[in-house]
Amino acid sequence: MDPVSEKLHIDDLILRALREDIPGEDISTNAVMPCRRPGQADLICKGEGVIAGLSVFARVFRLLDPETEADFTCRDGDRVGKGQRLGTVRGDIRILLSGERTALNFLQRMSGIATCTAAAVSILQGSCTRLLDTRKTTPGLRLLEKYAVRMGGGHNHRFNLSDGILLKDNHIAAAGGVAEAIRLAREYAPHVHRIEIEVESLPMLKEALEAGADIIMLDNMSPDEIRQAVAVTAGRAELECSGNITVESLASLAAVGVDYISSGALTHSAHILDLSLKNLRPL
Amino acid sequence: MDPVSEKLHIDDLILRALREDIPGEDISTNAVMPCRRPGQADLICKGEGVIAGLSVFARVFRLLDPETEADFTCRDGDRVGKGQRLGTVRGDIRILLSGERTALNFLQRMSGIATCTAAAVSILQGSCTRLLDTRKTTPGLRLLEKYAVRMGGGHNHRFNLSDGILLKDNHIAAAGGVAEAIRLAREYAPHVHRIEIEVESLPMLKEALEAGADIIMLDNMSPDEIRQAVAVTAGRAELECSGNITVESLASLAAVGVDYISSGALTHSAHILDLSLKNLRPL
Amino acid sequence: MDPVSEKLHIDDLILRALREDIPGEDISTNAVMPCRRPGQADLICKGEGVIAGLSVFARVFRLLDPETEADFTCRDGDRVGKGQRLGTVRGDIRILLSGERTALNFLQRMSGIATCTAAAVSILQGSCTRLLDTRKTTPGLRLLEKYAVRMGGGHNHRFNLSDGILLKDNHIAAAGGVAEAIRLAREYAPHVHRIEIEVESLPMLKEALEAGADIIMLDNMSPDEIRQAVAVTAGRAELECSGNITVESLASLAAVGVDYISSGALTHSAHILDLSLKNLRPL
Amino acid sequence: MDPVSEKLHIDDLILRALREDIPGEDISTNAVMPCRRPGQADLICKGEGVIAGLSVFARVFRLLDPETEADFTCRDGDRVGKGQRLGTVRGDIRILLSGERTALNFLQRMSGIATCTAAAVSILQGSCTRLLDTRKTTPGLRLLEKYAVRMGGGHNHRFNLSDGILLKDNHIAAAGGVAEAIRLAREYAPHVHRIEIEVESLPMLKEALEAGADIIMLDNMSPDEIRQAVAVTAGRAELECSGNITVESLASLAAVGVDYISSGALTHSAHILDLSLKNLRPL
Amino acid sequence: MDPVSEKLHIDDLILRALREDIPGEDISTNAVMPCRRPGQADLICKGEGVIAGLSVFARVFRLLDPETEADFTCRDGDRVGKGQRLGTVRGDIRILLSGERTALNFLQRMSGIATCTAAAVSILQGSCTRLLDTRKTTPGLRLLEKYAVRMGGGHNHRFNLSDGILLKDNHIAAAGGVAEAIRLAREYAPHVHRIEIEVESLPMLKEALEAGADIIMLDNMSPDEIRQAVAVTAGRAELECSGNITVESLASLAAVGVDYISSGALTHSAHILDLSLKNLRPL
Amino acid sequence: MDPVSEKLHIDDLILRALREDIPGEDISTNAVMPCRRPGQADLICKGEGVIAGLSVFARVFRLLDPETEADFTCRDGDRVGKGQRLGTVRGDIRILLSGERTALNFLQRMSGIATCTAAAVSILQGSCTRLLDTRKTTPGLRLLEKYAVRMGGGHNHRFNLSDGILLKDNHIAAAGGVAEAIRLAREYAPHVHRIEIEVESLPMLKEALEAGADIIMLDNMSPDEIRQAVAVTAGRAELECSGNITVESLASLAAVGVDYISSGALTHSAHILDLSLKNLRPL
Repeated sequence: MDPVSEKLHIDDLILRALREDIPGEDISTNAVMPCRRPGQADLICKGEGVIAGLSVFARVFRLLDPETEADFTCRDGDRVGKGQRLGTVRGDIRILLSGERTALNFLQRMSGIATCTAAAVSILQGSCTRLLDTRKTTPGLRLLEKYAVRMGGGHNHRFNLSDGILLKDNHIAAAGGVAEAIRLAREYAPHVHRIEIEVESLPMLKEALEAGADIIMLDNMSPDEIRQAVAVTAGRAELECSGNITVESLASLAAVGVDYISSGALTHSAHILDLSLKNLRPL
Repeated sequence: MDPVSEKLHIDDLILRALREDIPGEDISTNAVMPCRRPGQADLICKGEGVIAGLSVFARVFRLLDPETEADFTCRDGDRVGKGQRLGTVRGDIRILLSGERTALNFLQRMSGIATCTAAAVSILQGSCTRLLDTRKTTPGLRLLEKYAVRMGGGHNHRFNLSDGILLKDNHIAAAGGVAEAIRLAREYAPHVHRIEIEVESLPMLKEALEAGADIIMLDNMSPDEIRQAVAVTAGRAELECSGNITVESLASLAAVGVDYISSGALTHSAHILDLSLKNLRPL
Repeated sequence: MDPVSEKLHIDDLILRALREDIPGEDISTNAVMPCRRPGQADLICKGEGVIAGLSVFARVFRLLDPETEADFTCRDGDRVGKGQRLGTVRGDIRILLSGERTALNFLQRMSGIATCTAAAVSILQGSCTRLLDTRKTTPGLRLLEKYAVRMGGGHNHRFNLSDGILLKDNHIAAAGGVAEAIRLAREYAPHVHRIEIEVESLPMLKEALEAGADIIMLDNMSPDEIRQAVAVTAGRAELECSGNITVESLASLAAVGVDYISSGALTHSAHILDLSLKNLRPL
Repeated sequence: MDPVSEKLHIDDLILRALREDIPGEDISTNAVMPCRRPGQADLICKGEGVIAGLSVFARVFRLLDPETEADFTCRDGDRVGKGQRLGTVRGDIRILLSGERTALNFLQRMSGIATCTAAAVSILQGSCTRLLDTRKTTPGLRLLEKYAVRMGGGHNHRFNLSDGILLKDNHIAAAGGVAEAIRLAREYAPHVHRIEIEVESLPMLKEALEAGADIIMLDNMSPDEIRQAVAVTAGRAELECSGNITVESLASLAAVGVDYISSGALTHSAHILDLSLKNLRPL
Repeated sequence: MDPVSEKLHIDDLILRALREDIPGEDISTNAVMPCRRPGQADLICKGEGVIAGLSVFARVFRLLDPETEADFTCRDGDRVGKGQRLGTVRGDIRILLSGERTALNFLQRMSGIATCTAAAVSILQGSCTRLLDTRKTTPGLRLLEKYAVRMGGGHNHRFNLSDGILLKDNHIAAAGGVAEAIRLAREYAPHVHRIEIEVESLPMLKEALEAGADIIMLDNMSPDEIRQAVAVTAGRAELECSGNITVESLASLAAVGVDYISSGALTHSAHILDLSLKNLRPL
Repeated sequence: MDPVSEKLHIDDLILRALREDIPGEDISTNAVMPCRRPGQADLICKGEGVIAGLSVFARVFRLLDPETEADFTCRDGDRVGKGQRLGTVRGDIRILLSGERTALNFLQRMSGIATCTAAAVSILQGSCTRLLDTRKTTPGLRLLEKYAVRMGGGHNHRFNLSDGILLKDNHIAAAGGVAEAIRLAREYAPHVHRIEIEVESLPMLKEALEAGADIIMLDNMSPDEIRQAVAVTAGRAELECSGNITVESLASLAAVGVDYISSGALTHSAHILDLSLKNLRPL
């Protein structure tokens, strides 16, 4: 992750997570270890997957004590296997104990998303279709989860309601039609944004094309409709498929030639990658 | 959720989530709807499960505009079905559009956890074994996720490192043994806390019992060892099983008569419950 | 201003400004007015210009006391004249006195920007050229200042480094050339963004056009070069002029047919519009 | 600026400005520069003026990465000229690119205020009259803007409503007269404060003098009235002129012998000093 | 307390105190009272003293639930007696239970300070000597504690290092002497501040008088020295006594005719006034 | 104090205290010392007592400038005497002057609590009765005050409403009786908590024992009742005495054999320990 985003956004997130887990003091640790003692522990992978979030993992400990050190044997985006030692953390044993759970909670979740994304991306391999995430992310963790999607080989859709335009059914209704919605967006939005609109039928698609939409989202369309949509569009706009994407449908959609497939499940329903901090030992 | 926790902790969480999704303005909505227009929309369930988080869902909109109203046809903890209308939100259409995704992101996740918990709890039905969550929650969302576990029929383990004692392998090593760890914790910790310790073998269990542990966690033990542990303990401490809990092992563990089973998967790997805000219409 | 942005971003800004002006208590007011007394005062314009920020002005007082009321005789974007009464604020006199300076500081600055923008926009009238702001805004006030530009008839460029791409000389150098910079941006950025690049010569412009830039900023080019640039581009990309824009150059640039002219002076060097709260009287 | 104010107040201001400009990530920079590369760039002056805010400029980069270094060839308060190189920043090129605009936005604005103040102060040279700022500052930036006034040779009036007393027409009305207002303030306020009162006529001035005001502000008085006010006062209180101060009136007011002249325009309507970060190059 | 200070500063303080006492949920209350039930309780005084902080007490409950109501039979600054019912709070019983301790913690402490101050002030009655507080207040509570001093009949010294000047021995040493310190302060500080300096001997006092100090603090002087100091000063400056003030010394110092006596014990060592919330009953 | 609590909670507290004392700049210091000059000063004890909070004292200066150094000749919990030099602080003299009051305010208050606690603990010496604090702490400072109690030899009761259960009269009334309250708490609360209940009579005590309370608080009982309570309980639960604890009653309660005595006065009415920063001198 780039250092600017980490400094401006992630540090605060980590400190909040630590305060959530330690609103007062870590009683168990303070009971058995009344003073500083240097030690180290290993980060062990207990499943198969793609790792993502190593710098966040390390940052948890370093925010508690800048003298903590973390070395890794892999990098974000790497495939990791069961039993593999991914790295070592060294520092005050109290810091290792108190930060362990928070550090793992971040890393497990991010790696789970990267792993889930990588599985989907591998199905699309060879096609020109890009896999996209959505705004269906965990409240507060969007920056981390979208980063994890990239580490899994996926691409990011817009990050939020302020950095991209997507006109959905309700916006269209409010505007009074597809063409009018596109016109209003073009008039209102900064010129640096492309206009994306969601359509549910071929007639809507045609209207959107005529109104000059840059990107068109085909929402919950059947494979057949999607094929027709690609033909009708003929390259005049980019096409994005969304809704009920399954492992099976991924391959066929790629074959049809849509530009993008977006999937909320990457971030809202991925299993974590099981990781553990083991072998804590004094130095 | 009780109003004190909501006011002190959840409002801030919601506002952060909204600012994450709308760091500037909601361009799409502002483009098509330049001024206030009252409307309403329905909360529709698109899967089967247990709902949890309705007050959080409503609060998202009410924090944006206190005049927004939400009525529900169900309550947290209720089973809900595919296609069921769960409620209606009424207010400024701009508020409904801008708050929709954030409100659903909270509700879907919490309901997913409640649903997952309810499934496990139903297996334990009839036994005296309680299902517990862990600290393997999403950073920042612990209060909401532990609430969702309760709505699914589960019970909460300690909330954080400050409100409960759990002496793990590393604490035991640091203290120099099971008995010494328990003694140190008893000396250090406020008297309102019970002492829980994690053991990995029967000899450790016996040492913990002699040292007067209140609760003993059997970590990753085989069914056989667990059976022996129950026999050895003979009610002198409460027993908690943890690690690699599966649907299959749940029933047998309950039969053995452990007091608690704790599962991180309830919060770290539950699928969301699919929900949607539909039929937005002017009033 | 839309209610979502106000709630999520402006309220906090106002409270910070009030705390800056009243870090303890308002001694002068508390000395002479030890208890609540209802009163009202008039908002008077002391110059000629375009008003912007009325809801922010009112919000300052309402955040201090929600029972304060403000009525206005004009709306954001209206032209206002010297001596004109723009509205009335009613409430606890202590609130009116303590909030006055902060409320005026916001309104004067925003109206100054709207006034300055309106003057420039009027020169462009009749042309297809849009006037844009920049990121040269007052730290902390960007949302308000960009809103003021809109109220003056201008349009907004990107709001920040996260919601739009603009490849400048340094980015081009880092990438190793115009074409490579555009390629990298296309690969990295979410597909909802258009790619804008800054060029300083006609050869660079041609390279950018061939690489498929969506928008090209002509930086500090002479009128002659700009004319050639328009001819060379021939509609294949949008053109934006920037740098040392003066009242004189505005008209000629518009005549040449560039799509956008961006000016930092709108926000960094506009004079305020002189406004005053007068005739405070008990009710 | 002193290190205590910087640490307690300015760092937070800078981080907010950076988060405003980079609410997610800096897409353009991250696209072309995926990893750390050391470089440097020059701070170039593009106008004539007085520089102020160099430590704030440097701090922007150092907060993003403490290893960034900035050397300057001048100090706050120095006169600088067109084309002059004022310093060099060295560090990770990503940091230089991402921090550039925010750093310049602070420095340009502060230097603009210092420049504007210095121009006014030079007119007063040789007189005993001090030039003062007001509370008409940019919301959130008062500490920086008042510092810039000092760097331009001006003096600061009170910083806020809590650290000084100034009884204006409305306070006088509320108290029921000049004498009563002064009596109430003397009774209520901590003894470390002097009492300043605003008067609009000679009779009010006399009443204020009799009531023992320490400082008297002559609000919008004609040159003639001001001359009479100085004579009437005869050193029994300090006199401050305020309202519609122009370059022309400055010299004549100083000649009359008022103690202070306060001007809101120093902070609310100063043009920025044009500055630029140039010649970015790898190291 | 005035509404502006409460809104800008006290609300935040109260919310922090509540979050300190309820970092998660109020387990005891939630266990026995799963839903809203209206009730009321009485605020009972269990000692003799001066009450201060009633609006803070009420605000604790109202911040948790704006529908909570509090009526009082007394006002801040009133003398109250043992067993006296001071008021009643009405609202959701959960709110009353959860807010009780925090509300009392504020009120008891503030009333303790008011009581302690009133005792000292009563000794000074009839003299012209004012009793002052100091900056020896509880970190975070200064605004409340200084308000409590006023409610006990005392006056406030400066609130902080930014709103008043007090040159102590170390400042004098740094400046190179009494006269130089005063000259530097006069040059640097905004003109709205009076200059106070601390002296430890009569020669220093004389130097301070000649240098034009406005207020002179006699630090730890003997009664004899203080008498001489008053004679030497002869009204040319105000005199403040400080250090080791006891009940006995108060009366004699007042008789000597110093203008001010400042005492840190008012805020750092006052006993609380014992108060209790009793007779909670459903409505 | 452990480094994790300090980093997560105390730093923020210190920064708030510093901002409270220096909302703008330290005028006196900046007037006499315009630039950095290294110096040192001694921490001197002016009374007799137990020191607590040395790391907080040092942290105040180090947060203002990480290069400040503090060495101590004693450790938290040590007895210190009048005139004793406890340590030395070295750094930029401006930092020493600006941080002095805040650093001392923390240290004096914490040491006052430790001293007061140690006096009470010494009375209990030889008995098995532990002295406990309460939640009657200064809003915002609970973590520090509870730490000070430990340094004085006392033990901590629960830290807040979320980490322990204490069923008081109002909870019992709400639940409909002692037994029901205990049953509800057992059902609701995480299993890591022991159940404490407050009783006011022997019949209530018996009901609590039968219902299986873990700890029973005897509220405001007479010595005779307490003796009977100990006999009735016969070790089936732990007993805690509370209310109107005096020096005299402490010894007799210990003799009776209660397990705990809790006293609010330790934190709400302790006198500070007088401390001072002296002999500031350049280096």
